[in-house]
Amino acid sequence: MQTILKAGQQQVVDRRVQGAARTSVAPKPIARSQRTLRQDVRTAAIANPSAVSKETVEKCVNAIRFLSIDGVNKAKSGHPGMPMGCAPMGYILYNEVMKHNPKNPQWFNRDRFVLSAGHGSMFQYSLLHLNGYDSVSMDDLKSFRQLESQTPGHPENFVTDGVEVTTGPLGQGVCNAVGLALAEANLAARYNKPDAPKIVDHYTYCIAGDGCMMEGLSNEASSLAGHWGLGKLIMLYDDNKISIDGHTEISFTEDVLKRYEGLGWHVLHVQDGNHDYDGIRKAIADAKAVTDKPTIIKVSTLIGYGSPNKADSHDVHGAPLGADETAATRKNLGWEFGEFEVPQDVLSIFRQAVDEGAKNEAAWKADLEAYSAKYPTEAAEFKQLISRELPQGWENALPTFTPEDKGLATRQHSQTMLNALAPVLPGLIGGSADLAPSNLTLMKMFGDFQKGQYAERNVRFGVREHAMGAISTGIAHHNSGMIPYAATFFIFTDYMRGAMRMSALSEAGVIYVTTHDSIGLGEDGPTHQPIEQLGNFRSMPNMLMVRPAGGNETAGAYKVGIENRKRPTTIALSRQNMPNLPGCTREGVEKGAYIVKDCQGTPDIIIMGTGSELELAYGAAEELEKEGKKARVVSMPCWELYEEQPQSYKDSVLPPSITKRVAVEAGSSFGWERYLGWTGAFVGVDTFGYSAPAPKIYEKFGITKDGVIAACKKLLA
Amino acid sequence: MQTILKAGQQQVVDRRVQGAARTSVAPKPIARSQRTLRQDVRTAAIANPSAVSKETVEKCVNAIRFLSIDGVNKAKSGHPGMPMGCAPMGYILYNEVMKHNPKNPQWFNRDRFVLSAGHGSMFQYSLLHLNGYDSVSMDDLKSFRQLESQTPGHPENFVTDGVEVTTGPLGQGVCNAVGLALAEANLAARYNKPDAPKIVDHYTYCIAGDGCMMEGLSNEASSLAGHWGLGKLIMLYDDNKISIDGHTEISFTEDVLKRYEGLGWHVLHVQDGNHDYDGIRKAIADAKAVTDKPTIIKVSTLIGYGSPNKADSHDVHGAPLGADETAATRKNLGWEFGEFEVPQDVLSIFRQAVDEGAKNEAAWKADLEAYSAKYPTEAAEFKQLISRELPQGWENALPTFTPEDKGLATRQHSQTMLNALAPVLPGLIGGSADLAPSNLTLMKMFGDFQKGQYAERNVRFGVREHAMGAISTGIAHHNSGMIPYAATFFIFTDYMRGAMRMSALSEAGVIYVTTHDSIGLGEDGPTHQPIEQLGNFRSMPNMLMVRPAGGNETAGAYKVGIENRKRPTTIALSRQNMPNLPGCTREGVEKGAYIVKDCQGTPDIIIMGTGSELELAYGAAEELEKEGKKARVVSMPCWELYEEQPQSYKDSVLPPSITKRVAVEAGSSFGWERYLGWTGAFVGVDTFGYSAPAPKIYEKFGITKDGVIAACKKLLA
Repeated sequence: MQTILKAGQQQVVDRRVQGAARTSVAPKPIARSQRTLRQDVRTAAIANPSAVSKETVEKCVNAIRFLSIDGVNKAKSGHPGMPMGCAPMGYILYNEVMKHNPKNPQWFNRDRFVLSAGHGSMFQYSLLHLNGYDSVSMDDLKSFRQLESQTPGHPENFVTDGVEVTTGPLGQGVCNAVGLALAEANLAARYNKPDAPKIVDHYTYCIAGDGCMMEGLSNEASSLAGHWGLGKLIMLYDDNKISIDGHTEISFTEDVLKRYEGLGWHVLHVQDGNHDYDGIRKAIADAKAVTDKPTIIKVSTLIGYGSPNKADSHDVHGAPLGADETAATRKNLGWEFGEFEVPQDVLSIFRQAVDEGAKNEAAWKADLEAYSAKYPTEAAEFKQLISRELPQGWENALPTFTPEDKGLATRQHSQTMLNALAPVLPGLIGGSADLAPSNLTLMKMFGDFQKGQYAERNVRFGVREHAMGAISTGIAHHNSGMIPYAATFFIFTDYMRGAMRMSALSEAGVIYVTTHDSIGLGEDGPTHQPIEQLGNFRSMPNMLMVRPAGGNETAGAYKVGIENRKRPTTIALSRQNMPNLPGCTREGVEKGAYIVKDCQGTPDIIIMGTGSELELAYGAAEELEKEGKKARVVSMPCWELYEEQPQSYKDSVLPPSITKRVAVEAGSSFGWERYLGWTGAFVGVDTFGYSAPAPKIYEKFGITKDGVIAACKKLLA
Repeated sequence: MQTILKAGQQQVVDRRVQGAARTSVAPKPIARSQRTLRQDVRTAAIANPSAVSKETVEKCVNAIRFLSIDGVNKAKSGHPGMPMGCAPMGYILYNEVMKHNPKNPQWFNRDRFVLSAGHGSMFQYSLLHLNGYDSVSMDDLKSFRQLESQTPGHPENFVTDGVEVTTGPLGQGVCNAVGLALAEANLAARYNKPDAPKIVDHYTYCIAGDGCMMEGLSNEASSLAGHWGLGKLIMLYDDNKISIDGHTEISFTEDVLKRYEGLGWHVLHVQDGNHDYDGIRKAIADAKAVTDKPTIIKVSTLIGYGSPNKADSHDVHGAPLGADETAATRKNLGWEFGEFEVPQDVLSIFRQAVDEGAKNEAAWKADLEAYSAKYPTEAAEFKQLISRELPQGWENALPTFTPEDKGLATRQHSQTMLNALAPVLPGLIGGSADLAPSNLTLMKMFGDFQKGQYAERNVRFGVREHAMGAISTGIAHHNSGMIPYAATFFIFTDYMRGAMRMSALSEAGVIYVTTHDSIGLGEDGPTHQPIEQLGNFRSMPNMLMVRPAGGNETAGAYKVGIENRKRPTTIALSRQNMPNLPGCTREGVEKGAYIVKDCQGTPDIIIMGTGSELELAYGAAEELEKEGKKARVVSMPCWELYEEQPQSYKDSVLPPSITKRVAVEAGSSFGWERYLGWTGAFVGVDTFGYSAPAPKIYEKFGITKDGVIAACKKLLA
């Protein structure tokens, strides 16, 4: 079958403008007195916002509104309402509050901004353009939502520099923001020193809408942020009371701030987010003043503010204003400028961000130099980390196994790998959704990441899978060399699928460590037993699905997971023991599929298997051999990597001429036809499982050595 | 390829003990004075609980504890801690508070009980046995967690009578309970009359643990329950402060009751859930007294209460106590009885539930008779509904279409179907997760289900997909003929996968109405574009995945969805228009795959397609015909139903001898090899999509008529 495979994902990677926005400012030594001054500067992009008149600020705010309106109109598609309501917050954040460097969007110590209400993407594109980011030109604004433009319908970090994370599916951004704030807290605790300039020191801002507040994953992440006391996380909740179905009174009447108080947050309310700029400014200042809790600022706004006939209605949420209403809005807000026109005075104000940004980065570089002089060892590790290059020779930490080594569950091997890697990979951080003793994911040399002990690297996510996935994605997108892992039972990936797909789409190198990967978990029964999940992840674009057999393949799974920093890896691990079969290698995993045991001459039959069932394939081949049959055993731990191999390699492992093939896997047959064709046979399970001791379930479904032998003999007959 | 197909699911269905627990009590007329008496009885299974001494109650409570301990010990696997801590709640609920009929677990007007903390299944099994349910004999308790026993590791409604829903994955039960309470509120508002006995009148109780409280979906459902003011929903939160990772202080320090206050709930706290029986009783009474809000009762307990060395620790959560600690616990609690021994006095107390239950049901039947006499029309509809038989001729309401009818998006056809069916299916109820104007799922003749208007049937779920799925599953499991539907964009099934799988596993006939089913949604871009989802649901056991083309197939999708009351159906619908192709039929959908357009004689090639791409297959065949090629077009709206057809039918549609096959679908190739083999070709997309007008994206990926023609010609060359 000819098919378009995952390698095509490369197209997406290539969409980012190469070389743009990478200007750096040379560091130079500065005197301490100057540094103090600069630190003031760093608290606000414009040192003295009050120097800009209220009228001018309003003009700037309207510039954001009209670029957004015009962009959506031109695209004939999009969401103007959110940008119109949130424009005051946007101006204040990007041009008074946040330190960022438009000419180097990847500057390490920038404040992070997450638009969790991702449908309002024109809000962010307008601000990036106005602030002088090269990634969003005026032409880009005019190409909103067009094929392969820099301005897709929802913000995509892998397309547009200056966008930190990919949002759209609601609530993800809130969790990503928690992950960014976690990364900052961890690195700050590990690398900042009391007697040196702070080299890790930024805030994370997030704008979330009513939809984000309704989604359960945002509550999960917010509960964790409150528990952790992430004081540098500031969320602005755009309380515009409109969602797609209409007014929120039809489905969302809870007291959000009381809930957040319950979650341990510092809560504030700006009653008039449309006009009370000082209220917004004061709330952000108050938020910063509370350092031991995250802050939520409920900012009550009017969706589509300025539109005389559509504001405060669903009509302005997800459809262009149209020519007439745009004209009416221009009149209503006194905006005398043309389509996509930005008056020069307004642009000059915004573009001060470019100089300020350069100064900010230069100051940080000087700080980093001063720090490096005093703490050369720490500085070296820190620089290595944020370079996002893996430390040389890290993979030597991975152990190898021989068939004589005791057969263990791959979750046990996984624990060995994590503990072998933790000392050599300063970026490794992660944990489990309350299954650490079952997933075996604790790094024993570290404590728990907790309030007051942010330098530790074991994260306790609680029973919150979806938030765990999205927080881990946020950690990866801190782009500081962090390698997050997230653990749960394989079945509970069903709870975090939304986040896992976002990590795949947004190219976040999260490692999903999942255990209890089949009916082999036994007594917990069908609610806990994955069946179709392996195939589900094999078919997810840009996701590596690895199901290793034994110690060497588990080492291979980690090698693959660590090395793939632009795509996530899901590792499916067994609860039960399995042997270290001869022929199983780490390198085999890197090729995706490989010959574990071969015969003399051309095989009569190929037996494929993965994970805990490779043993059955192997055992069956041994039996067939005794009867004079020539059987080859192929381990297929990662289909995606196999498909990426040259055709010659693929054909050498699975020669097209050998059509008698059997596959064994304690999971669904779905997808296995790719390798079995119409002439092969599958030994597995396509129904839900059972609650019983694991061997009984395997027997019930005929997933046994004898079952494999019988399937082979039927084909060979 | 030989494979085990979904039909095997039938095995699971057959596991329920047939004929057991179906004893019914004959209704007989009663005098009004007696009825008043009986209404008192109905508020408590034991009319006068204070007549049972505190010591005896304690003995009953310990009986629950030790059956649970012994069951887990015997299974060498399970969770004793929860039952030991919650036993007081269990006794009070089952034996003082709830009206239920052990000899007819399906009695319509019973109070519903949901064990959201499903790992504590032995708690429920012990109570079912003690209360005299035939579904759980002493032998069943001794077969806990054994293959095909009545007592699986987590409660499964399709195995054990008396279990309302299937739980285990945390938080699902909380949502199911909201669904049960919603169903009660809806039916009560529709059928109860002020001047007749109440025929719908029960509470829904739920025990949830710390894990349930951490999961985001429980917050979503609780926000809705608060919004709706479901006063007859009473949740007991087992606050034992232990989760698998240890003390909840490491990941869960929020103020749960303050959060629930924010969610609009009535909140109560019983500080000593281990000893303060009167406190639990009073809290439940107080909960009942508040009729306009759901109640959460935080009951602080000790996990593993009674175990001298393991209580209050993770050790007692998920592992057997073992012989020594069991002996120590027996001593500690003064329990002088043997393994699985229930003293007769204790059993007699519990078994009063049998008589009380019979009386309760008899009283309700008498009420129903009185009601029927006064309201014969309503009664007839009500009886028909709760019989769970579909009204005769309902399917005649589905319209048919001809090629001359205007081509519409299948989401528009779906709206037509819902509005055609709503008047003839009194059980139809549902709505969208805040996408009603896009999903087109409003039933226009009804208003919104809201506080004070519970009789309405459009449910506004807000942006809460996961809860929507699980609430809908709860509605289905009310077992009162309700046919819930739940709508969102197809991609956001990723948010509710956990709930959808639970509906498949637990045999809940939910209809998932999903729109914007491919890259065809256009500008919203890759975050919103499903790719691998069709295959994912095709591989989910007991789920029907239907992707219809045009009006007749959409009618077919609904026919299938409505008829399949023991498995959920997911319908994938387009945003964009498509024609009503000649040959497309409702009956074709029921067969899963069928010939839409054939040629004279044996086809040279078969072109398969689904949904919006069937048009491309059709158009390509027309072109090929002009060039003298013989092409057959096969529509494949539902693979699962096709696989269930006789082999002769299957071979007549896709003759094994015709190996030149092309499939076209705007989704992943994964799984299509089942019908394409190694010789076929697939026209589709295996990478993430793009933000652009839909036709541009189709063109980008080559999913066009020309693309299909080219693929065919390559094979025919």
